[in-house]
Amino acid sequence: MITIGVDIGGTSMKAALTEPGGTVYAKTRRPTLADREQEATIGQLHDCIEELQELANAESLTVDGIGIGVPGAIDIASGTVFHPPNLPAWKEVPLTDIMRDRWEREVRIDNDANCAALGEAHFGAGREYDNFIGLTLGTGVGSGIIIGNRIYHGERGFAGEFGHITIDFNGPPCNCGNHGCVEAYVGIGYMMRAAIPLLRNASASPLHERARQNPESLSPEDLSHAAAEGDDVSADILRTAGDRLGVAIASTANLLDMTTFIIGGGISGAGDVLFDGIRASASSRALKVHRDRLVILPAALGNDAGMLGAAALLV
Amino acid sequence: MITIGVDIGGTSMKAALTEPGGTVYAKTRRPTLADREQEATIGQLHDCIEELQELANAESLTVDGIGIGVPGAIDIASGTVFHPPNLPAWKEVPLTDIMRDRWEREVRIDNDANCAALGEAHFGAGREYDNFIGLTLGTGVGSGIIIGNRIYHGERGFAGEFGHITIDFNGPPCNCGNHGCVEAYVGIGYMMRAAIPLLRNASASPLHERARQNPESLSPEDLSHAAAEGDDVSADILRTAGDRLGVAIASTANLLDMTTFIIGGGISGAGDVLFDGIRASASSRALKVHRDRLVILPAALGNDAGMLGAAALLV
Repeated sequence: MITIGVDIGGTSMKAALTEPGGTVYAKTRRPTLADREQEATIGQLHDCIEELQELANAESLTVDGIGIGVPGAIDIASGTVFHPPNLPAWKEVPLTDIMRDRWEREVRIDNDANCAALGEAHFGAGREYDNFIGLTLGTGVGSGIIIGNRIYHGERGFAGEFGHITIDFNGPPCNCGNHGCVEAYVGIGYMMRAAIPLLRNASASPLHERARQNPESLSPEDLSHAAAEGDDVSADILRTAGDRLGVAIASTANLLDMTTFIIGGGISGAGDVLFDGIRASASSRALKVHRDRLVILPAALGNDAGMLGAAALLV
Repeated sequence: MITIGVDIGGTSMKAALTEPGGTVYAKTRRPTLADREQEATIGQLHDCIEELQELANAESLTVDGIGIGVPGAIDIASGTVFHPPNLPAWKEVPLTDIMRDRWEREVRIDNDANCAALGEAHFGAGREYDNFIGLTLGTGVGSGIIIGNRIYHGERGFAGEFGHITIDFNGPPCNCGNHGCVEAYVGIGYMMRAAIPLLRNASASPLHERARQNPESLSPEDLSHAAAEGDDVSADILRTAGDRLGVAIASTANLLDMTTFIIGGGISGAGDVLFDGIRASASSRALKVHRDRLVILPAALGNDAGMLGAAALLV
C-alpha cells in the first residue's frame, strides 16, 4: 500500500510519500500559514499532496490514500477537527470530507500524538513491539496508545492524555485545573520554571549566570549539556523529571499490562540522565511482574514521526 | 448459549447455570477446602458442575461450556493457574485442561476481578455500557477493564491493577514495594489503620470507644453507619477514601477516555458518603471533556458477580 501522510504543525506542515512499514519515497514541507484563514492552510495541504502525487505518477506508484495528523481534538468517525489551538482560524472543519472531495480517495485523520506513536510503530523504535505507549514530551505531555499495532482511541478519540495522570494529588497546579498531573512536573514550561531558582542558587553550575540574567533562554537541552559536563544541579533536575515520568509509567504498566514506552519530543533530547531517571523510577515502582520486562526507549524518528504515522493511518 | 460459571473463592466456591445476558437458571455453592490438597478443591468444582449439569439435563438445556474465575495470576492462553495466594496447595495447575478432560466441552478461565467486571457487564450495572472499569474494593483494589463488552487483558493477562496506580509518589508504603498506590489509601486494612487514630481522638464519635477497646472489630460499614447517624469524623474518613479513589479514576479517564466506573466489593457497601466523595473528586480532577460524562455507579450483583462473569467468559 502506498500512501501520503501529512503532519500539520503550528508553523510548518510536513508530508511524505511512503509505503508504511517499508520505504519513504519522498518528503516535502510547506509553511502552515496558521495566522491566515482556514482555506490558506488547506491550500498548502493540497499543494503538498499534489507535489507528492506528481512524484508518485512519475514513478508509476498508485497512491491508495491520504492520512493527516492534526494538532487538536478530532471526531475520528466523521473526520471533523474541532478548534485546534495552533490553527486559530479553524472552528469545526470537516477535513476528511474536504480532502476526499478534492482527491477522490480514502482519507483518515487523527491527532498528532497518536500519529507520532503510529509512526514509531511502523517506521521507528516501535517496529518490534505490537503494544506500546508513545510519549511526546514538549510543552504538554501527550501520548499515543498502540495496542496490536493500532491506535487505541477510547470512547470518543480522546485517549492518551498521559500528561494528565495525577502523580501527587496535593501537587502543583496544572493548566487543566487539576493538581499534580505529570505534565505539571515535566511539561517544558513547568520543568524550566522549577529549574530556574535551583540554577540561580547554584553558583558552581555553568548555567548559573544565564539563569540569573536570561532565564527564558534556558532549555532542557542546556540542562543536558551541563549535566554531561558534570553539573550536578542540572543532572538532578533531569533525574527528578525522569523520576516523575517513571511514576506515571509504572502506574500505566500496572493498569494496562503494557511494558514498552517510547519517548520522543523536545525534552527527550535531554538524553541519558533523563532516561536513566525514568528507568530507575519506573522499575522500582512497577509491580514485580513487570519490572524485568519494562522497555523504555528514545523515539527514533524525531519530527518525522507525525507525517509517517499519518501515512500509516490507512493501514 | 447456556453456560456454567464457577467463582472459586478462598472459603467457598459459587456456581451458576446461566444464559449470559439473560437468565440465571440455578445457583449452588460448596466449601473450597482451601486447606486441603489440590484434588479436594477440584473435586468440589466437579461436584458443583455435576449438580448444575443434572439440573440442565432435567430442563433439557444443553450446556455449551464452563467458565471459571480464579483468585490469582493466570496464563489465559494455556489456561494455567499460578500459585493463587488463597489456595496454598495449588502450584501451577493446568485448570483448563483438567476441566476439559473431565467435562469434554469448552472451558475458559480468568481471574476473579476480571470475572466480576464481566458479570456486571452481562448481568449487572454494566449492561448499558460497552466500555467501563469494574473496581472491586476489598483487602486489595482490583479491577477488570471492559472494552467493547470484553475483558482487556494486556500483554500477559495482568491488566487491571487499578490499586497500584500511584496517586502520591511520596505517599505511604504499599505492600507491593511502591509508595502512594491508591490501594495504600483505600485497601480495607490501610484505610482502617488510618481511621483508628482519628476515631480514638474523636470523643464525640459513636465509634470512639470501640476504636480504643477493640479496633480490629471496626469495618468500613461501621464508618458508614456512624456517618449516616451524623458522625462527622466517620464521614470525613469515607469522603477522603472517595477522594483518593477519584484521583485514580480521573487519571484513568484521562489516559483511556473511559468514563464509566462500576464499584463493588466490601468498602463499596459504605454507600453514599463514599460515592459522593468519589464523584466530587473525579469530576473536579478529570479533563473538562470528561467531566459531564463520568458515570460512577455501585455494582449490582454483590458476591454473585464473579460466578456470573465466569459464565460469560464463553460469550
